[in-house]
Parts: sequence; C-alpha cells; structure tokens
Amino acid sequence: MNPTIKALPKQATTSTTSTAITILNKYLSIPHNMNSMGKCFTEEQEALVVKSWNAMKKNSGELGLKFFLKIFEIAPSAQKLFSFLRDSTVPLEQNPKLKPHATSVFVMTCDSAVQLRKAGKVTVRESTLKKLGATHFRTGVANEHFEVTKFALLETIKEAVPEMWSPEMKNAWAEAYDQLVDAIKSEMKPPSS
Amino acid sequence: MNPTIKALPKQATTSTTSTAITILNKYLSIPHNMNSMGKCFTEEQEALVVKSWNAMKKNSGELGLKFFLKIFEIAPSAQKLFSFLRDSTVPLEQNPKLKPHATSVFVMTCDSAVQLRKAGKVTVRESTLKKLGATHFRTGVANEHFEVTKFALLETIKEAVPEMWSPEMKNAWAEAYDQLVDAIKSEMKPPSS
Repeated sequence: MNPTIKALPKQATTSTTSTAITILNKYLSIPHNMNSMGKCFTEEQEALVVKSWNAMKKNSGELGLKFFLKIFEIAPSAQKLFSFLRDSTVPLEQNPKLKPHATSVFVMTCDSAVQLRKAGKVTVRESTLKKLGATHFRTGVANEHFEVTKFALLETIKEAVPEMWSPEMKNAWAEAYDQLVDAIKSEMKPPSS
Repeated sequence: MNPTIKALPKQATTSTTSTAITILNKYLSIPHNMNSMGKCFTEEQEALVVKSWNAMKKNSGELGLKFFLKIFEIAPSAQKLFSFLRDSTVPLEQNPKLKPHATSVFVMTCDSAVQLRKAGKVTVRESTLKKLGATHFRTGVANEHFEVTKFALLETIKEAVPEMWSPEMKNAWAEAYDQLVDAIKSEMKPPSS
C-alpha cells in the first residue's frame, strides 16, 4: 500500500473515492470544494449536472444537433471553422456529418461535467485533450467562439429540462464548461515537431 | 422642375415619394423592391418594422439596455470594446454610461430600419456613418461581434412584441440590420490623414 495513503486517518481507506479525494486535498491544503487545479465544483453542482444529464442523455443526438444549430444561428460565420460544412453544398440541417459531430461534442462536454468532481479535474483522455487543443488552435477558434458556444450550450440544456432549470443549475453547467474550455485552451498550441 | 422628372408619366408628380422612387428605380432598371444599393426591402417588410417599432419606442431605454445586456451575456469579452466599461469598477448593470449608450444604438438601429425603404438606403447622417465606421474600425469590431449583436437585437424585439412576432417580422429586422451593418462596414477604414 502506498505509504502516503497509509498515513491518512482510517476512514480514508474505507470511504468512497470522493471522500478520499477530499481528505487528500485537505492534506495538500486544497479546500475540499476545489479540485486539483484549485477550481471549485461543489457536490451540489455535481448533483445538478448529473440530474439534468440523466434526463437528457437519451436525446443526445437531437440535443447535440440543436446545440450546434443554435451556435450557427448566433454566429453563422462559425460554420467556416468546420471543414465538412465549409466544403459542403447541402443546407446545414441536411449535412450528414453535422449531427454525428454535434452529438459527440455534446456528449463529451456533458460527460466531462459529470466526471469533474469525482475525477478532480477535466477528464477527456489525455490524447483527446491534446488533439482537441491542436484542432482548436489549427482552425483558429477565438475566445468569442467559446463564449457563443457556452451560451448555446446553456440555452440548449435550459430548453431540454425546463422543469428543473434554475440559476444554480445554470452556474453548475457554466462552471463545468469553463473548466473544460480552460483545459482545451491549455493545449491550444502548434503541434510539437 | 428637373427635366428628368418632367419626362416621367403624370402620376409621378402627384404620387407619394415612395411611388416616385419606385418609378425612378424602374427608369434606372432597378427592380421596384430594391433600393439604390440594389438591396431588397419590401413594402411588407417596412410595414412590419414600422408596426413593431411603434409598439417599442416608448420603452427604448429599457429595451436598449436589455439588448446590450444580452450581447454581453452571449459574449462577455465584448465589454472590452467599450472604454466606459473597460475602465469601470462598477458592475455592468450599474454603469451610468451603459443605458444612454445602449438606448442611442437601439434607437439609431430601429430608426434606420424604419427609414430604409422610404429613403432608398441606410440613413444615418453621413458624418455619423463615417464616425460609426471609424469607431468600429478603431476598436477592432469583428464580424462575430456584428453577428452576436444581430442575434441579441432580434431576441430583444421578439421578447418586446411577442404577440406580433413572426418569421416574416424576424426577416424584416434581419434584412434592415444587415443593410445597416453593410453601410457601417463600408466606412470601416483608418481615418484619412
């Protein structure tokens, strides 16, 4: 057994992963409501994100598409950032690659939010985060695009679960999105040669 | 009397300005639903814009502020384009310069839409258009900002007059906004020295 873990109070070895992380963070002087990046994502925020994701995930395809159509409604010029839209001659809604792409982005974003507290950091696999960073760098995604995408995501979720929507739920999703974007931005650099 | 006008059929001298422009455009081979820039703004679109503006104008202050707060909700970083926000230490909603500025932009935008067909072109006074172009150029306004502003404007009007809102009304305001932006963009250049 790892000697550091051995030195912790008995409860650490018998409790849940989440409690173990809380205790570890305490030993590392990180407040219990912050993750290893020093950012806050509370138990309440996690519960709100999990609850709404459970209600949405069966409709990931429709919601993902709605999310992306909302981005392009607000910022039509963002279409030029996607090669499969830029080179296309069919209308946006009929593009065969849009829905699969939109769905995977939506699911990845929500998954990252759901895992955020348990994992103690943004979890998309390391290779994916690097790839995401490189792609966003290469295509020239600007801060304004991340902002519009955040607004579109929050609107999509609000319209998907109006009965459970609240300022607290909005803040929870906003915080999770901001942490995902920070993680992507930290990898936005030219590929190492 | 101008000899060109004299040569027009009798109805031209007795009809309204708008009919005179239609007939002039016909003689100049411009279709009657296009203005002197060759852009379309129909009588129906004018009626929709006038009708909604008449319902909104008494609330210009509140609506202008709502319009700008919506822009900043979607794109918080756009605040840095405004010196009175950039250098401010008070919260956005309490900034004393925001509401007057937002109101004047909202009224100018709506006035331009209302006048568009009658005038046959975007009407903000020539000096104002030049000034608007120079200011937008100097502060570094990007295409994405004009897009977000368009979305925020349409949402603000939709929420202001929900009972008369329709796809046709949305298109009318969108067209008028696009023509205003084109006119501003045509003046977005460094000041002549």
